[in-house]
Amino acid sequence: MEPKNVSRATLGRLPLYLKELETLRNEGRITVSATVLAERLKLGDVQVRKDLNSVCDTGRPRIGYRLEDLEGCIKALLGCKEITPAAVVGTNRLALALLEYEGFEKFGIRLNCTFSLKDEEGTDEISGKPILPAKKMAGYCAENRIALGVIATGKAEGQKACDLLCAAGVTAVWNLSGADVTVPETVTLRSENLALSLAHLNLRSNG
Amino acid sequence: MEPKNVSRATLGRLPLYLKELETLRNEGRITVSATVLAERLKLGDVQVRKDLNSVCDTGRPRIGYRLEDLEGCIKALLGCKEITPAAVVGTNRLALALLEYEGFEKFGIRLNCTFSLKDEEGTDEISGKPILPAKKMAGYCAENRIALGVIATGKAEGQKACDLLCAAGVTAVWNLSGADVTVPETVTLRSENLALSLAHLNLRSNG
Repeated sequence: MEPKNVSRATLGRLPLYLKELETLRNEGRITVSATVLAERLKLGDVQVRKDLNSVCDTGRPRIGYRLEDLEGCIKALLGCKEITPAAVVGTNRLALALLEYEGFEKFGIRLNCTFSLKDEEGTDEISGKPILPAKKMAGYCAENRIALGVIATGKAEGQKACDLLCAAGVTAVWNLSGADVTVPETVTLRSENLALSLAHLNLRSNG
Repeated sequence: MEPKNVSRATLGRLPLYLKELETLRNEGRITVSATVLAERLKLGDVQVRKDLNSVCDTGRPRIGYRLEDLEGCIKALLGCKEITPAAVVGTNRLALALLEYEGFEKFGIRLNCTFSLKDEEGTDEISGKPILPAKKMAGYCAENRIALGVIATGKAEGQKACDLLCAAGVTAVWNLSGADVTVPETVTLRSENLALSLAHLNLRSNG
């Protein structure tokens, strides 16, 4: 299995599959085919077949997958077996909204805290997650094995936040600041505009 | 041109192309090829060729595109010629962060306001955008030709927000509430988890 080949769209459907597999297991089923899963979820047969094929290679013609195998593959991919700790930089509404957002756990990611670039000693917290001064970033990230960094600062502070995260040892950066940031070669970067999904939806609904 | 064939990933790169085309135009160029654009943006040649081909059909072998044509096609797609007004439902941090977020304009979308399901008369506003009571939704959406609705409520209120938006005449709904909402057949729905992009990045950086 090569995780890199799982598309963003497929990844987005995995929690849905996992939920339905649990229902099927509770109904006493041992195996499931892509066709059955597609029907129950009202998705396209071909799409589900491709999705399952890209995450689990134990499917058999006419039988499908053993529920246990398929659940194992999806859970491994979603990181359910091991939560990846992540840290945010920023204290604006977006940063705090991310800390409060409950959808990360579903994908095996936990946002531990956010760092303030203002470097004040803060005692604040959001949803039980602390707002820490930037000077504590290196120590905190090492101690808590923070692998992912989220830049949720304003545009002007984007590169500074990025440099601090990279220096603190994260291996991937998700940049929502709107700034054109650069990272060392060892770090994976994704710069994203939150509006993109809505824009794509708008395009499709007009098409 | 068939807008439905433009992928989310391609759409995400269009603002980048547009910016570079402007630079090229200021340099006095009349035409541009996918190869030149790819080199200047440090993107893959094949990817840029596919992107341009999916948004503009006036490219010619060995010559490329007239800058004017390509800019026109991209601007038409991004809705730069006509801004699409959208409305949010919700008053939590995520809803307010979206109102404050500046990245929507780049894709020709303007978030006009947010509606509170608590139905209080509010005088509050965020970044100059009003927080309105839900009972004003139908009237406001009709008057302002709101085509897109964004559900940024909690899970429990997701369907209620969705029903109100659909009744108010939106043609597409972007659901961030985490609830499994249903829409009438005439409305396009995208339910999304904000965490998905970070999860996909995590997958890639581990692969």
